Amino acid sequence: MVVNLDRLFSRRAMKLKGSEIRELLKLTQLPGMISLAGGLPCPDAFPIEVIRECIEKIFDKHILNALQYGTTEGLPGLRKVLAARMSEKKNIDCEFHDIIITNGAQQALNLLGFTFIEPGDVIITGAPTYLGASQAFHAFEANFESLPVTDDGLDIKSVKRNLKRLQRNKIFPKFIYTVPSFQNPSGVTMSLENRIELLEVASEYDLIIVEDDPYGELVFEGDAIPPIKSLDRKGRVIYMSTFSKILAPGFRLGWIIASEDILNKFILAKQSADLCTNPFGQYIAYEYIKGGYLDPQLDKTRKLYRRKRDVMLEALEKYFPDNVKWTIPRGGMFLWVTFPKRINTRTMFKRAIGKKVAYVVGDAFFPDGSGHNTMRLNFSYSDDEMLTEGIRRLAEAIKEEMASFDLEETIMAELI
Amino acid sequence: MVVNLDRLFSRRAMKLKGSEIRELLKLTQLPGMISLAGGLPCPDAFPIEVIRECIEKIFDKHILNALQYGTTEGLPGLRKVLAARMSEKKNIDCEFHDIIITNGAQQALNLLGFTFIEPGDVIITGAPTYLGASQAFHAFEANFESLPVTDDGLDIKSVKRNLKRLQRNKIFPKFIYTVPSFQNPSGVTMSLENRIELLEVASEYDLIIVEDDPYGELVFEGDAIPPIKSLDRKGRVIYMSTFSKILAPGFRLGWIIASEDILNKFILAKQSADLCTNPFGQYIAYEYIKGGYLDPQLDKTRKLYRRKRDVMLEALEKYFPDNVKWTIPRGGMFLWVTFPKRINTRTMFKRAIGKKVAYVVGDAFFPDGSGHNTMRLNFSYSDDEMLTEGIRRLAEAIKEEMASFDLEETIMAELI
Repeated sequence: MVVNLDRLFSRRAMKLKGSEIRELLKLTQLPGMISLAGGLPCPDAFPIEVIRECIEKIFDKHILNALQYGTTEGLPGLRKVLAARMSEKKNIDCEFHDIIITNGAQQALNLLGFTFIEPGDVIITGAPTYLGASQAFHAFEANFESLPVTDDGLDIKSVKRNLKRLQRNKIFPKFIYTVPSFQNPSGVTMSLENRIELLEVASEYDLIIVEDDPYGELVFEGDAIPPIKSLDRKGRVIYMSTFSKILAPGFRLGWIIASEDILNKFILAKQSADLCTNPFGQYIAYEYIKGGYLDPQLDKTRKLYRRKRDVMLEALEKYFPDNVKWTIPRGGMFLWVTFPKRINTRTMFKRAIGKKVAYVVGDAFFPDGSGHNTMRLNFSYSDDEMLTEGIRRLAEAIKEEMASFDLEETIMAELI
Repeated sequence: MVVNLDRLFSRRAMKLKGSEIRELLKLTQLPGMISLAGGLPCPDAFPIEVIRECIEKIFDKHILNALQYGTTEGLPGLRKVLAARMSEKKNIDCEFHDIIITNGAQQALNLLGFTFIEPGDVIITGAPTYLGASQAFHAFEANFESLPVTDDGLDIKSVKRNLKRLQRNKIFPKFIYTVPSFQNPSGVTMSLENRIELLEVASEYDLIIVEDDPYGELVFEGDAIPPIKSLDRKGRVIYMSTFSKILAPGFRLGWIIASEDILNKFILAKQSADLCTNPFGQYIAYEYIKGGYLDPQLDKTRKLYRRKRDVMLEALEKYFPDNVKWTIPRGGMFLWVTFPKRINTRTMFKRAIGKKVAYVVGDAFFPDGSGHNTMRLNFSYSDDEMLTEGIRRLAEAIKEEMASFDLEETIMAELI
């Protein structure tokens, strides 16, 4: 008898589906393809020599600890230097015991799902929202209330209206998930006013806010807006971030700042999930911050990404048709394009691949499947020439797609 | 209003409890303490110079990939050299696509729980069984059927009897979890006959066997017994192992070999759990195997641990009272002590700590809370002198504990 797996899988496992988007992204590996689809940091932003120095320090000072099991909470030294930085740069009132280290920020999302979400529980996200977050919450069978994202981030009016509606229907959401700075995928940033108001609303309904802040340090111009966590005096905000964009993704290091009761649950959940985050990588991050390497490196990365954004914006101005709109992000790695309603970016994808350029279709970021006329473009990964050429190719695909519609309309008009 | 967390936590999170054992283990950090409690590999077994060489190779050849995100399945190169090794040394018929890399073997246990266990589902384990596994399965609210472990490993007669009983009661377990070689905590090994029979029983009831094999390479004498997976032709066995005991725990690297349908679910679950295992560490493991460093290193580690086991056995013979029994493991890192029924190792723990020696109380390894008269001793971590002195101190504590019982009995006898 062969194993009958359908009988053995859990319901949540039965519901897991392969990401269609990841299937599409496989096409971006074809030769000659320019991919504006991925979400990868630029290899030029990896501080290779600095990492080599940090590793030398590990071999000199910490090698036996770096090779052994570590505590589930994470390396105390790393949590200390992180806490100092979070206090100083982000005005988040915290000490090392308010921080735990995770296996990348994705694990923080997983711990959140594990700790808060029962099947059918409602959570509030933006529409669009980060794909990795919806996957993590989906894995624990959440129901999504996806609310509009405006140029000022998550639409606060809609949040209020819908919380009221949910309350009337005796539905009590578990948390509000938001990426307030340079959101993935839209690139937009929530204003300070909206951050303050969101915290007030969360307080009124006694809700948790999950503030996912992977891009907060990648500010290109103007002052950074204070994180919601810096305004929080009640332990209402769970703050999470990552080393993937300020050091390198390859060590899989993220962190969470939250109240003691919440962290204690996360620690127990993480203990059963993977015992601890890799200590060798944690020592690298520790030496990286302690050695004062982070700020100079961030300066370089900000300049590099700002230039790349400008190159993309310039190409968009030059090549894209007039009736297409895009966001102008003041930081981060992505911008967001909105087409006239008749354009479906999923349909258009094949045409773009034919022109050897790839993007992410926008509806992937809408838990409710809307957003058919949007797309995400990444400007951090490709070099300047590729960015310009990629946008030029994409514009060709767009114009052809629009022309095919015009032609269809002409034919329709003639048939009437 | 302060956040009312009890209303927000999931049921599974509400059930999570701090491990009492971990609290006890904190005592082992006191100055002067000899800990036979932990489960750490010996730092002398870390191939520090080899790791340095592997890292040099990474900087020479793979640094940009090692610092970037990797695929969820794991580094293809690492999976290839692992598959070749598993075929050659373990006679497991596999190729690289039959293997995925996990964030330590603990993540493999977590993926197993996520993918198979609904609240209340029954799983079968040994009694005693590995604590990390029971934590991982407990996190997904499993019900444990814990069956006796004999000198030949999981008691196959009991497995048969209880599967029949469960079937009569219309209870269908999800899987049988076992550590067949040099089990943590008992140190015992399942015979080949029992492995064959276990696979037959699993086939009869169409069940999955989870074979957790972290210590299989640490054979001190005699031939290694083939893994159950090497006997499996139906994709019935999920095999998992780790680099923690053959390289170092600090990179958090484990792997799973399983059938395609099961791996596909694990990959999706892992994608939402942490995207990928740290590529930098994976490249180290890749260069470690590819460079031919593993086998010489294993020879050293086996010799080191065999000597340590012998030192501990000699001390046990010399110092422990006659009415105490222990296992004689032919590999691994642990041995198991059984006392007369009247001894409770949890009660005795304080006395041992007073003598500055620590162990793990045996009942921690029994999901049903039995095993009060047992303890786990680790021989891999401490040096020879500490091992001998630790056992001497422990023997003192045991003799005092026994004497206190004798005294009590004398008093009781006089009172009658």
